[in-house]
Amino acid sequence: MPFTKPIVGIDLGGTNVQIGIVSPDRKIIGNAKLKTKADQGYEAVLDRVTQGITEACAEAKIARTDLGAVGIGAPGPIDPNTGVVLEAVNLRWTEAPLAKDLGKRLSLPVIVDNDVNVAVYGENQMGAGRGSKFMMGVWLGTGVGGGFILDGKLYYGHFLTAGEIGHTIHLPGSPPGSRSLENNCSRTAVADRIARLIRANRPSIVTTLTEGNLDGIKSKVIAQAYEANDPLVREVIEDVCDRLGAAIGSCVTLLSLERVVLGGGLSEALGKPFVKRVAQSVRQYAFPARCKDVDVVGSALEDRAGVFGAALLASERV
Amino acid sequence: MPFTKPIVGIDLGGTNVQIGIVSPDRKIIGNAKLKTKADQGYEAVLDRVTQGITEACAEAKIARTDLGAVGIGAPGPIDPNTGVVLEAVNLRWTEAPLAKDLGKRLSLPVIVDNDVNVAVYGENQMGAGRGSKFMMGVWLGTGVGGGFILDGKLYYGHFLTAGEIGHTIHLPGSPPGSRSLENNCSRTAVADRIARLIRANRPSIVTTLTEGNLDGIKSKVIAQAYEANDPLVREVIEDVCDRLGAAIGSCVTLLSLERVVLGGGLSEALGKPFVKRVAQSVRQYAFPARCKDVDVVGSALEDRAGVFGAALLASERV
Repeated sequence: MPFTKPIVGIDLGGTNVQIGIVSPDRKIIGNAKLKTKADQGYEAVLDRVTQGITEACAEAKIARTDLGAVGIGAPGPIDPNTGVVLEAVNLRWTEAPLAKDLGKRLSLPVIVDNDVNVAVYGENQMGAGRGSKFMMGVWLGTGVGGGFILDGKLYYGHFLTAGEIGHTIHLPGSPPGSRSLENNCSRTAVADRIARLIRANRPSIVTTLTEGNLDGIKSKVIAQAYEANDPLVREVIEDVCDRLGAAIGSCVTLLSLERVVLGGGLSEALGKPFVKRVAQSVRQYAFPARCKDVDVVGSALEDRAGVFGAALLASERV
Repeated sequence: MPFTKPIVGIDLGGTNVQIGIVSPDRKIIGNAKLKTKADQGYEAVLDRVTQGITEACAEAKIARTDLGAVGIGAPGPIDPNTGVVLEAVNLRWTEAPLAKDLGKRLSLPVIVDNDVNVAVYGENQMGAGRGSKFMMGVWLGTGVGGGFILDGKLYYGHFLTAGEIGHTIHLPGSPPGSRSLENNCSRTAVADRIARLIRANRPSIVTTLTEGNLDGIKSKVIAQAYEANDPLVREVIEDVCDRLGAAIGSCVTLLSLERVVLGGGLSEALGKPFVKRVAQSVRQYAFPARCKDVDVVGSALEDRAGVFGAALLASERV
């Protein structure tokens, strides 16, 4: 479909749904944000998303009938050809025909893809991955997600599950629960590690910043302590940069990647100095020498990557 | 080119060159094997290869003018579009225009690709990888090599160096020289480890089999001890299977692969029980659950994979 009508991009997460209306000149002209409330069931989520689209249309001052299509990024493995969510643990959905069911309600064509794929596609088309045919996105948040553009296209693999760098084995020999990259480098893992060190009586500014509440330390707090050169947080983040370098550098070695885009809440909060350190570390591990020319950059679209990517994918595929 | 004339497939290694004439019905009708003698220089290697092709033609009872094309697998990163060997450390070649130079001597079209890619292509077309669009080959020998078929095609990546699983980081935190997969799982690494344990006074049948000469223990000896249930060798190989499972399983997780073919001298010598143990280990580490359906199988073409693959690639690309 030529991109001539406004398209809806949706970032459907376990906690929040972000909806944006993207105009043909690639601007967001209407927004809506709502709680997913997956515990109310599949149909209720579809109702809320439909309602959110109506609100975003109102903000954009257009009617729903002016829309061309809807693109959705959803968690877990997706069949992009059928728009079926194969398994989304945090939505409690299995084999959910999301594209078909939402399409019926809206009388619009709907495409669905994995949430990280959609964000990586957004960066590749409009953000920090522009012009790259061989790139990887690595998203650091509650977990660690990833996605690939190979030979200029989103890569899915045989089981349609590709990109799961968070679940690659980072520490062979360690037991399940501590051996994957995600177990060591997600925001959750970093927060747990900082809390554990503080509870073992290491001093840190984080104690003050959190008023002593060390459960689920937020990315923002970690970033504040990092910027303030807090020795404990610097030490933990330094170690995370080295670990990410080994894992991402190994992906560059395997796939001869031109570019790596780092995104997600933790990476965005820590900002440029963090991305620069990870880039150094990736180059240290990448093989052979010519792969050390890989570019490692921060996300340019940040939390809009999913909305843009979903809308652009819909404009391509419908 | 339709495959109507005999094609030469060449496996060009640092020590040996294997040459085979492949008929249109995919049989090897003539062979030659020679020492590379790379120390005599680039031109001398081309002379010897030319001579070898003449000998193989004689065995096949055809003239060199009956040939359709030549395909070569050579070590190191190659530009498959130009047939330039970018860097082959063990041949001492840099930016060597092999396709052009050999083509001139033979008055035949010549294509060149990486040696592991060529073997993986052979397995994919005629061997243990038949019918698979998403597969990886892992070759265990002096080093650990790898190659990918993604979306039904050989995958090269941006710097044309993809597949180097041997150089991915297996033990982050360990120093260079002991941290890569190759440092832990090549035949060289396995032989060194067995020798070290025996020198530390662990009993093993390997002492008898090698008559006490523990330098560079061969794959065949390792396999004999493994089959004889030698406790020391069993323990080392068991550990290698677990390590390979973590590394290959991580590739399956990243790329959602349908099939993995294990080849190379060490894997071929250890045979089916070894491949079965690696397969179990890969399935243990692959994520998500649907990726545990990956097939892990042994090479079917063994040391002819390179010759067949090179000839088939030439028949496709010329």
